[in-house]
Amino acid sequence: MGLIVQKFGGSSVADADKIRNVARIITETYRKGHNVVAVLSAQGDTTDDLIAKAAEINPHASKREMDMLLSTGEQISCSLCAMAIEAMGYPVVSLTGWQAGVRTNTGYSNARIKRIETERLLSELDKKCIVIVTGFQGINRYDDVTTLGRGGSDTSAVALAAALHADLCQIYTDVDGVYTADPRNVQGAKKLDEITFDEMLELATLGAQVLHNRSVEMAKRYNVNMEVISSFSGKPGTKVKEVVKNVEKTHVSGVAKDKDIARLALVGLQDTPGIAFKIFSLLAKEKVNVDIILQSIGRNDTKDISFTVHKGDKELAKRVLEDNKEYLGFDHIDVSDNIAKVSIVGAGMINNPGVAATMFEALYNAGVNINMISTSEIKVSVLVDISDTDRAVQVIHDKFFSEFGGGN
Amino acid sequence: MGLIVQKFGGSSVADADKIRNVARIITETYRKGHNVVAVLSAQGDTTDDLIAKAAEINPHASKREMDMLLSTGEQISCSLCAMAIEAMGYPVVSLTGWQAGVRTNTGYSNARIKRIETERLLSELDKKCIVIVTGFQGINRYDDVTTLGRGGSDTSAVALAAALHADLCQIYTDVDGVYTADPRNVQGAKKLDEITFDEMLELATLGAQVLHNRSVEMAKRYNVNMEVISSFSGKPGTKVKEVVKNVEKTHVSGVAKDKDIARLALVGLQDTPGIAFKIFSLLAKEKVNVDIILQSIGRNDTKDISFTVHKGDKELAKRVLEDNKEYLGFDHIDVSDNIAKVSIVGAGMINNPGVAATMFEALYNAGVNINMISTSEIKVSVLVDISDTDRAVQVIHDKFFSEFGGGN
Repeated sequence: MGLIVQKFGGSSVADADKIRNVARIITETYRKGHNVVAVLSAQGDTTDDLIAKAAEINPHASKREMDMLLSTGEQISCSLCAMAIEAMGYPVVSLTGWQAGVRTNTGYSNARIKRIETERLLSELDKKCIVIVTGFQGINRYDDVTTLGRGGSDTSAVALAAALHADLCQIYTDVDGVYTADPRNVQGAKKLDEITFDEMLELATLGAQVLHNRSVEMAKRYNVNMEVISSFSGKPGTKVKEVVKNVEKTHVSGVAKDKDIARLALVGLQDTPGIAFKIFSLLAKEKVNVDIILQSIGRNDTKDISFTVHKGDKELAKRVLEDNKEYLGFDHIDVSDNIAKVSIVGAGMINNPGVAATMFEALYNAGVNINMISTSEIKVSVLVDISDTDRAVQVIHDKFFSEFGGGN
Repeated sequence: MGLIVQKFGGSSVADADKIRNVARIITETYRKGHNVVAVLSAQGDTTDDLIAKAAEINPHASKREMDMLLSTGEQISCSLCAMAIEAMGYPVVSLTGWQAGVRTNTGYSNARIKRIETERLLSELDKKCIVIVTGFQGINRYDDVTTLGRGGSDTSAVALAAALHADLCQIYTDVDGVYTADPRNVQGAKKLDEITFDEMLELATLGAQVLHNRSVEMAKRYNVNMEVISSFSGKPGTKVKEVVKNVEKTHVSGVAKDKDIARLALVGLQDTPGIAFKIFSLLAKEKVNVDIILQSIGRNDTKDISFTVHKGDKELAKRVLEDNKEYLGFDHIDVSDNIAKVSIVGAGMINNPGVAATMFEALYNAGVNINMISTSEIKVSVLVDISDTDRAVQVIHDKFFSEFGGGN
């Protein structure tokens, strides 16, 4: 008997039947003697519908009013879920972000949780109530509604689990757990029983899109045990924790791809000190996240700097750099979004220097050309042509995970 | 220059164009140098859509969760309206019931406003912000969302006007103001420039449905100047205030009808002391509002008591009385909803005893049979067959308001 936080995403609460299914999962957990706090996203396309409504009235609406608007989505799904649980005869109460004491900073549309005032939550749990909390939202110090941006509901769930010292934070989704590669595209992809926070972080960053980074970072910081689990299958999911049992054995946990990137190359840069600092601080000021960076010697004492950004930031990044062409001193900018990132992740990798070589070998055998390489303690990423992406993932996965491959 | 509270109903904010129209009205008032607090209802059918969603999941959902659900409707319309005002370049902020400090009792789905904590409102007005407030909702002492029931947004507007000592509370609607009768059905119906709170109260009770009683009662208690005005025509509306200028001249302000009633008759009651008390306290306990009561002598030392209730309460009232048949001691209950109430209202009526007679004469001349009569200081109501309703209203209106009629 303990406290379990369960998070259900938009597809898990998309219609009345799915809400009843969620209510069933919650009440089954409750019946086993656990306290349950459930965190819900807005139903299916609600958020998109609200965004369309706003765009019709004001395409440049303030983020403050957008948050006011969008936060209704979770309030609707939560009250409906509470009604479904009432119909099953269990004590339940739904709470908005402010009622649940979720206090954030003032960054509308992309707020960070600062603290959770748990008084109301604890008093409802003391009454043996099931508590349903709106994900993705809180209030700031002006008592204005804020939303948490991408992956917000996962973050809400982990923050609540941390604040309430929950025994487990279950992230219910439409997949069975974390796989060695995307099971929809890669033959032989296997579900992992356990994975470390760090591996999960790399996988999330790399486009595996099971959990959002922010939630995993927070779970790691507060040591919240997470589980990624299906809302529909009823099978055990993947546990995400600090240390997994068989870490010594695991060299590679998974293969991930990310097609949502673009590469910019500044060609013919004057080789002056601090040039990299200048470039990336300009981009940081515009909140453009830069991923892989490669610096190479060009012709005539110049050099080239290439880097990847999220595809959505491509134009912004280009404009920022063009606007500062004189200040930076380069010849021209090359932009390509015809590329994808393919990565392997594994906590055991650092002790196995052969892992990267094995990956490159697989790509070489398949005739996949590597554009850029980036490595960290627990991952190796390569940039390939976008048309090679799926094949690259498959051959790497075969190499590490098939019985006839070389890996584990 | 002063403070004006403006309330816009669901039909006034039904789509993007109508929201822009509301934004125009608000900003025009603001441009004249006034502070503006606007109170909005949910868009068009939003509330009905949400009720349908809830019914699919749990037809007996708790009122607490229903309020949580329904309160999102106004939050959506208010944030959208704020966005429309932002697009016009004015400073604006939307506030939910709790942000606006609307504190209610705990009566979910039909809560009463207890007080308004005006700190946030005043600070936004000090900043010269236009403030958009969700109508129909507040929070109770548990910090739970409550809704105010029928006419809730009118009540929100008047309560805010009272708390902020506003100079005027304008109720924008789809009619031009208060008429001497329903202009859609009665030929020659005239718009009134002014009307007293008491007359308005009687008209609202009698089914004129321009303003809800609760809001008028509150306006009378706190002496809030109201105006009923069209969102679309741009013409001056009807002022509702304590005393109107030409009160001496006005005998009858309007003719109203109410088809939404049912009559119950308890036939063959034992003529014991306190029988009326017993009957009506039983009904009050079930929150059945009783309107016209008529007591008559029956046969054999028994008597009959007839009364009218809202049509929706008919079955409940009947069941309560049937359940107490032995306690009350009657022969049988007669129920009819084939009736309607037609009334004339006027503050000058009490000084003109001929008014009721003139009304009865008009009905007699038209061959309309009167079932029951009820009078107060400022109104005379009769029950007629439902099929006679519209004709009764027209002949009474002709009598009092047409140039060839007898009245004013």
